[in-house]
Amino acid sequence: MTRNILLTISYDGSGFHGWQRQPGERTVQGELEKVLSHTLGQNITIEGTSRTDAGVHALGQRASFKSNVNIPVDKLPMIINNSLSQGKIFNERIPGEIKIISAEEMPPDFHARYNAVGKKYEYRIIASPEKDIFKRKYYYQIMEFPDIESMRKASSYIVGTHDFKSFETEGGTERETTVRTIDKIDIIDGEEKDEIVIEISGDGFLYNMVRIIVGTLVEIGMGKIQPTTMKDILSATDREKAGHTAPPTGLYLVEVYYNGSEITNS
Amino acid sequence: MTRNILLTISYDGSGFHGWQRQPGERTVQGELEKVLSHTLGQNITIEGTSRTDAGVHALGQRASFKSNVNIPVDKLPMIINNSLSQGKIFNERIPGEIKIISAEEMPPDFHARYNAVGKKYEYRIIASPEKDIFKRKYYYQIMEFPDIESMRKASSYIVGTHDFKSFETEGGTERETTVRTIDKIDIIDGEEKDEIVIEISGDGFLYNMVRIIVGTLVEIGMGKIQPTTMKDILSATDREKAGHTAPPTGLYLVEVYYNGSEITNS
Repeated sequence: MTRNILLTISYDGSGFHGWQRQPGERTVQGELEKVLSHTLGQNITIEGTSRTDAGVHALGQRASFKSNVNIPVDKLPMIINNSLSQGKIFNERIPGEIKIISAEEMPPDFHARYNAVGKKYEYRIIASPEKDIFKRKYYYQIMEFPDIESMRKASSYIVGTHDFKSFETEGGTERETTVRTIDKIDIIDGEEKDEIVIEISGDGFLYNMVRIIVGTLVEIGMGKIQPTTMKDILSATDREKAGHTAPPTGLYLVEVYYNGSEITNS
Repeated sequence: MTRNILLTISYDGSGFHGWQRQPGERTVQGELEKVLSHTLGQNITIEGTSRTDAGVHALGQRASFKSNVNIPVDKLPMIINNSLSQGKIFNERIPGEIKIISAEEMPPDFHARYNAVGKKYEYRIIASPEKDIFKRKYYYQIMEFPDIESMRKASSYIVGTHDFKSFETEGGTERETTVRTIDKIDIIDGEEKDEIVIEISGDGFLYNMVRIIVGTLVEIGMGKIQPTTMKDILSATDREKAGHTAPPTGLYLVEVYYNGSEITNS
């Protein structure tokens, strides 16, 4: 019997050219499909929720695949992780870049991307005059500590349902509308010295939307843009009006939301 | 006029086959020599203090080189770091893996390795039942929190001047004696939850000595070896008696000591 399996996946994106399979490039989807096909002994293709860019990380990416292999679904994470940790079979890098957190069986018509109703991202910033070479792949390093209250004030203007065209890089996947709903933005500072974490959740995100929001918030925190200008940037529906695109290194896909009680968000 | 320049260098060792130049391998010395030769417009060879292994990191490696290029010595770090950050010229990886912290002019007969009178290492451990994929290159990940007091007691037996043959992997560079002096071992826990840092300083270290000491201390912290057994391991002068070799990922060369007031240890 063919089963529809949903995986929850964490990965360090620094060694990958993003999620999506591409000929000749090392991608998360590509590596995972190789490992799954090898481990399950049949050709597996997976459908990820989010096509994260090169260098972007995930704590809770989701991906579904169909297989008739008769392995108990709760044993799958251990089996796949064992294959993943034998990194030498598939690549030359230190293994352990990808980890399967959980697996669950879904109804036949469930699709990891089309059924998603929302996502949560986290963006990590380090503010320090000296660059920390050990954090270069996992943070956005800025020189001065920004004004957090200005950033919070600015972020309040974009929570809700708006046309986010000003916060989109052209060239992403096709979309019917640039209207999206941001449910919440939390800007957390002080847990670790010099570290700022921006949590942002919503029903969907345009191409580079989180990174452009963060870049704009950083410029606001630096005093280059006034917090109230965020309203004008939003209403301009013009990418030129917003701030820079923050680098991929600080971005983490934290969680994907689905309707229905059958999904455990871990 | 030929000057003798001493560099203080930090690097993320995870992308390198160690310090020492080797044909066909990407090493810290090899990459630095390429960048220095390109930047200064003449063939540069450097002499590092410590031949760190593949995956081992440095916060304060030292290396000296001779050059007649007429650039003020205090400008050198900025100039070299600019070249290093143009990573695309020299390799395909994300730039920023190596950083020059400082440069100073030394007497003509000074040598970064032969003049060193001591070194300090740091070894970072994370104790958690769940592996953190983002820390795999920068820590030794163990499953349970070890007994720190047992580790401290055991470490007290090896401070001082001893024959450390039990804590040496064969095949390192030639050495006249296996007697070394450990000045101090500090085992620090609790600064960050689940993190243990072992600081160890001495006049010199045999091949893999710090990693075998750490592996043995971890087994003591796990209750597999009694703390007092450390004395027997030491006096056996037999590698078989000591614990495992802890992985390179947790090891950081922190500082190199020289005699004389002319050296600023940063």
